[in-house]
Amino acid sequence: MSPPPLRIALLGCGVVGSQVVRLLYEHADDLANRVGAPLELAGVAVRRPERRRDLPLPPGLLTTDAAGLVIRDDIDVVVEVIGGIEPARSLLMAAFKTGKSVVTANKSLLAADGAALHAAAREHNADLYFEASVAGAIPLLRPLLESMAGDRVFRVLGIVNGTTNYVLSKMDETGAGFAEALDEATALGYAEADPTADVEGFDAAAKAAILAGLAFHTPVTVADVHREGITEVTATDVASARAVGCVVKLLAICEKTEQGIGVRVHPAMIPRTHPLAAVGGVFNAVFIEGEASGPLMFYGQGAGGTPTASAVLGDLVAVCRNRRSGARGVGESSYADLPIVGMGEAQTRYHVSLEVADQPGVLAAVAQAFAAHDVSIETVRQEGRGAAASLVLVTHVASDAALSATVEDLRGLAAVRGVASVMRVEGMDAR
Amino acid sequence: MSPPPLRIALLGCGVVGSQVVRLLYEHADDLANRVGAPLELAGVAVRRPERRRDLPLPPGLLTTDAAGLVIRDDIDVVVEVIGGIEPARSLLMAAFKTGKSVVTANKSLLAADGAALHAAAREHNADLYFEASVAGAIPLLRPLLESMAGDRVFRVLGIVNGTTNYVLSKMDETGAGFAEALDEATALGYAEADPTADVEGFDAAAKAAILAGLAFHTPVTVADVHREGITEVTATDVASARAVGCVVKLLAICEKTEQGIGVRVHPAMIPRTHPLAAVGGVFNAVFIEGEASGPLMFYGQGAGGTPTASAVLGDLVAVCRNRRSGARGVGESSYADLPIVGMGEAQTRYHVSLEVADQPGVLAAVAQAFAAHDVSIETVRQEGRGAAASLVLVTHVASDAALSATVEDLRGLAAVRGVASVMRVEGMDAR
Repeated sequence: MSPPPLRIALLGCGVVGSQVVRLLYEHADDLANRVGAPLELAGVAVRRPERRRDLPLPPGLLTTDAAGLVIRDDIDVVVEVIGGIEPARSLLMAAFKTGKSVVTANKSLLAADGAALHAAAREHNADLYFEASVAGAIPLLRPLLESMAGDRVFRVLGIVNGTTNYVLSKMDETGAGFAEALDEATALGYAEADPTADVEGFDAAAKAAILAGLAFHTPVTVADVHREGITEVTATDVASARAVGCVVKLLAICEKTEQGIGVRVHPAMIPRTHPLAAVGGVFNAVFIEGEASGPLMFYGQGAGGTPTASAVLGDLVAVCRNRRSGARGVGESSYADLPIVGMGEAQTRYHVSLEVADQPGVLAAVAQAFAAHDVSIETVRQEGRGAAASLVLVTHVASDAALSATVEDLRGLAAVRGVASVMRVEGMDAR
Repeated sequence: MSPPPLRIALLGCGVVGSQVVRLLYEHADDLANRVGAPLELAGVAVRRPERRRDLPLPPGLLTTDAAGLVIRDDIDVVVEVIGGIEPARSLLMAAFKTGKSVVTANKSLLAADGAALHAAAREHNADLYFEASVAGAIPLLRPLLESMAGDRVFRVLGIVNGTTNYVLSKMDETGAGFAEALDEATALGYAEADPTADVEGFDAAAKAAILAGLAFHTPVTVADVHREGITEVTATDVASARAVGCVVKLLAICEKTEQGIGVRVHPAMIPRTHPLAAVGGVFNAVFIEGEASGPLMFYGQGAGGTPTASAVLGDLVAVCRNRRSGARGVGESSYADLPIVGMGEAQTRYHVSLEVADQPGVLAAVAQAFAAHDVSIETVRQEGRGAAASLVLVTHVASDAALSATVEDLRGLAAVRGVASVMRVEGMDAR
């Protein structure tokens, strides 16, 4: 006698959902073998059922009644790929209340209200899996939670947004400015018509919150994340980076220090020798530093219907296996509950490029501005003469507050005609 | 009331084992929080208990009686880091028979007799976890088995041996020959006094068997793996690779074709633009191609006591969580049971560098030798004149048997004075 099927409700049938459907049918035999029982698609909630879909969906499976679908008695697992806070949040809470397990790709919801969802899953002895919410196809969250469960992570550096990585890669390769590179990304379909969520770092900030929570066993929400986008990155910044052997990337940075944990998203220069520097185009990669493991990097496609569906189905197999064994998986870890420290306390380096007057005493005045905030200078290079004279400085590690105050002071110096470029430098320090 | 501790027996206390002990004590609080119960080291089996160890081991924990330790009633989980086939095999079988779960770093044993171990674990409702057996600290095996369980892997390309990667990286950077680069690796402690297992590809072949088994859900042993080491890689080969934009790496290659699966370890040229090309020194990286996921890469330290201990402890946490929930983890997958195809049927490309007579008709004769075996040529380049004339050819994809037979024929041609370099080229074809 073959075991009864596990019945799946799918919420959303767009770019990701339609690939989930396709793979559920095309890989049905493999999935059944891996779970130990067949997976059966029992309902698909969509907004426009009349829309043409090239999918092998049996008639009657489509419904507009998502709320009714998630509480149906015959459903075992709810897969949510509609995104956004509501109605996803209410639907998943209703699913948990009726004992369903959940697989979701919803980074915004998890970063906004993950603790409430995890609590609901726990209360109803259900699973909440969300590998697809960060870095698409790349197995990352379960390796952090499970494979690295015997280690202590102290830093995560991630390129977790493909759109901005495409734009910055293009600026680096061609010398283009931000607007021009973004136009090209839009033309190629790598940027949305309204690119705000990507270029302003909102997407990366949600992912940073999820990564930090898992890495440091602490509840982190997107409100805890310091966020700066890439709209103010200039061709001059990119050229300045190149001149010091660096490349500009939008990084999601999660760090543990003695004071607590810091989570931030901002453009930064990283050395071209860093493994993340070679991650070009729309690819994602996450660099993790563990006390025992040393550096690790996970690389792959961070978005797209099929890669994201790969992660969703991997979670679905796990959740279905857990249903069959009666066990709950490891969906979260928040026992450490460390304090979140603000951006001012972040320890980082600055690269500063100054247009200066070509006269004696300039370097002394500039150096004094750094010294006044206890920021020490690692390298300084003087370029050009006369009206084109400039100073390029890279600092040692200092608090972001001290570095930021130093730059403010530099702007007020008579000898400084302008601040051409200020950017943080990351990835230079191993622990 | 706090839950009772899970009691651990450790077999072996060398480079890896001593780091497992250290982390068990130093991270005790974190581990207890992650498992939900304390982990208690209950016994350590060693050959020489009198040897000085800088470890916080309570007196009485060391024993030379490994066989007695693994069957003790008070032990929950056995961690094996002694390596080799025997006595490890008998000890682990005895552990399973008395209901213990096992965490092991033993690639040789798993590649030789994994099926019997998995069967014993299944029979006694115990876990067998082995993340540390391939690529040290890099989370790789559980992501393959679990995160990618909803996808279909069709190819794995891995740099899984740090010693040979150091030697080949050094040859590429400095132009050194094999012997000189190996001497340097030995002097730095990156190669053992007897480097045979590494440089002849035995170590990589065991890892390839384990990777192929998990990737293709099929039992694979090391006897199924075609193996060539790097001892015959010359400075000329490395220079030839450089001239065509490639770098030489020792690759573990697992492929699924319509005929079945092929598993092979040999030096190969890969394009410098391939993500694996940048993996230098003793680092490991595994590139996985899934139908839905697209390309993924996992990068990190493949050996060393502390990195390997990170993987061992990650497994230990998982196994202990399973003990507490009463569930078994996913230790294997062999339902597909695909046929293994021989090396002759492998689809690959060759790079061939020939010393030729500088006379009319040479290219025609050489081209005819390829055509006779239905091998088509992608590029051909003529270099030098007179006694220094050479032809450098890169083929399209063909069967290894046809390519190999072509090279045999080339050696017999009057116009060919010598075959300077023959090497396979991988990583050029996406599917």
